[in-house]
Amino acid sequence: MIGERFQVIYHLSGTEAVALEKAQTICLEQTVEVGQELVPNGFIKEHIVGRLEQFSPVTSNCYAATISYAVETAAGELTQLLNVIFGNTSIKPEIRVQQLILSEKLLAQFGGPRFGIAGLRQLIGVAEKPLLCTALKPMGKSVIELAGLAYQFALGGVDLIKDDHGLTNQPFCPFTERVKACSEAVHRANRQTGKHCLYVPNITAPCHQLRERAIYAQEIGAGALLIAPGLTGFDSLRALAADDAIRLPLISHPAFLGTMVTHPANGLAHGVLFGQLQRLMGADAVIYPNYGGRFGFTREECQSIAASCREPMGHYLPIFPMPGGGMSLEKIPDLLNEYGNEVVLLVGGALYTRSPDIVDNGRYILSLVGRS
Amino acid sequence: MIGERFQVIYHLSGTEAVALEKAQTICLEQTVEVGQELVPNGFIKEHIVGRLEQFSPVTSNCYAATISYAVETAAGELTQLLNVIFGNTSIKPEIRVQQLILSEKLLAQFGGPRFGIAGLRQLIGVAEKPLLCTALKPMGKSVIELAGLAYQFALGGVDLIKDDHGLTNQPFCPFTERVKACSEAVHRANRQTGKHCLYVPNITAPCHQLRERAIYAQEIGAGALLIAPGLTGFDSLRALAADDAIRLPLISHPAFLGTMVTHPANGLAHGVLFGQLQRLMGADAVIYPNYGGRFGFTREECQSIAASCREPMGHYLPIFPMPGGGMSLEKIPDLLNEYGNEVVLLVGGALYTRSPDIVDNGRYILSLVGRS
Repeated sequence: MIGERFQVIYHLSGTEAVALEKAQTICLEQTVEVGQELVPNGFIKEHIVGRLEQFSPVTSNCYAATISYAVETAAGELTQLLNVIFGNTSIKPEIRVQQLILSEKLLAQFGGPRFGIAGLRQLIGVAEKPLLCTALKPMGKSVIELAGLAYQFALGGVDLIKDDHGLTNQPFCPFTERVKACSEAVHRANRQTGKHCLYVPNITAPCHQLRERAIYAQEIGAGALLIAPGLTGFDSLRALAADDAIRLPLISHPAFLGTMVTHPANGLAHGVLFGQLQRLMGADAVIYPNYGGRFGFTREECQSIAASCREPMGHYLPIFPMPGGGMSLEKIPDLLNEYGNEVVLLVGGALYTRSPDIVDNGRYILSLVGRS
Repeated sequence: MIGERFQVIYHLSGTEAVALEKAQTICLEQTVEVGQELVPNGFIKEHIVGRLEQFSPVTSNCYAATISYAVETAAGELTQLLNVIFGNTSIKPEIRVQQLILSEKLLAQFGGPRFGIAGLRQLIGVAEKPLLCTALKPMGKSVIELAGLAYQFALGGVDLIKDDHGLTNQPFCPFTERVKACSEAVHRANRQTGKHCLYVPNITAPCHQLRERAIYAQEIGAGALLIAPGLTGFDSLRALAADDAIRLPLISHPAFLGTMVTHPANGLAHGVLFGQLQRLMGADAVIYPNYGGRFGFTREECQSIAASCREPMGHYLPIFPMPGGGMSLEKIPDLLNEYGNEVVLLVGGALYTRSPDIVDNGRYILSLVGRS
């Protein structure tokens, strides 16, 4: 009945003895949730309990433990898979999920990204070089003002124009009005430019409204959808990616998730949270704060995210890393060097402030990434 | 148009100058997400941007900043309220959400708990003294074995019998079969004892199946529902609590949430995550790891959770703190002293291991809490 197993690599702080004890405890905590003495012999002990497959030092005070779990423990559910990986163990200090090694059978239980890098490029009609994204902001602007900005950004050649993730359905900027006006503005610009800029409304919403907003946005002409799985739950993103009625790319925003990666000894590694789990959910591009901006991610952490987005992962498509957050124009050469071509640069402020001519600002930034 | 504001108290690590700068940045980051120089005068600057209301030292290296936001920024959505409180700021180190001070208008946008302490006591028929809960485990046991355990626990007088939170819909223990058998077992025991033990199945599930499992469980005779909002998304719990078709108490499990509280300078304070936010979601009882068990919470952190569950919070009902995790019997006197009567003690292992007679174990533990 039970066969294939998947693996989780945990980094465990402490001496070898402490780390080994943590590893053995994880095997129990994440499955049977009883002490070793209460584990029944036979099926449960042999198959259900997590199995310590490898244990080796990372540094003098950190050990890597590879623990395998039966695929069936996750029940084909993303919610329960997250639980087996890190449910109760998230409450214990100095244990970090460093990497997932998911088996083919497990990966096949989720659809994964439907567009990925190649699909997004095809929709936008740009076969190579980095893509450019910006955000409509600030919260408090009217629908007409935001649509006006969207029009200019699209004229300037920006590839993806997303709502700021704080724009949802405020009374001063209702969702349906905003999405209609901004979609129309971008389509109007596209007719003038001949390009295929995508408007990306934020559909992050209470669960009973999420699908409804996605469908509305699609029908009114949006080009992709923005969702913050830290706010909606990870499975909400997966459900949209598995929904046959929704045929738009999904872009994932990191709001509310930061604490999961802040401390290097706890939580989830950057590549797990912003790479592997995003692909499991079915995101086609993932926004994260770039190094050197106003958030604290390091260059190495950002590289690990980009690598996890793009490296082979079963049959799942590679997805776009989408660094943003305080991206000034003088950083662009370094970003190109760091990320290569398969990246979406999320540029906010610089597109607004380089000059009063927003259309020209867009064109200028495109020239900086070799697209003029 | 814009009037009432709600407040968030953040604890900010650093010197006074550093902390003050963090506070000013939060006002922008959580609302307009642009630099001060890009905030338009008038409506946006006066109403939309967060407002620093108070700033005072907590320790020599930590300052408390009270920041207010217009109720309308949260759009009446729990997802967006979480985003305003801590969305992007979660990604910045050494900022912790210490307390929420939610206005009446904002609290009225969510229903809150429907049963709370008094409602749960009424269903169970125990007007005072602590309640006793246990868990069906381990994962891997058959439906018949789990139902047999449920029967004995209920005969022994346990008030609430929950599924272990890792039991979802595994092929070796399918949800519908388990919930039917365990419900029947508990009802059979109740007929013998004349008591009102509640069976609490775990309905944590992918979003398209959550409501379906809740309805099934209710129709087949479950007495309350267990859900892990860290796995499903916080709004999923709220949606169940707001669903007229679901008339069972909701018990919240902390799986996958631990990292949010681990480091005292980051994330959410224990009372915010396991108290205030649970009541916003509509949980009637909240499970958390007790001090001195196999998890790392301190006595003070647990006290702050219990206080946040029970203290006045607008029109919201007080809810049960439900400490668990390595609760040995010799700790019970201390727990009674610490938590008083308005608590549900979640006892796992001791109920299984005190003696081979599970019925007697239940009765014995009830006597320890003054209920014989």
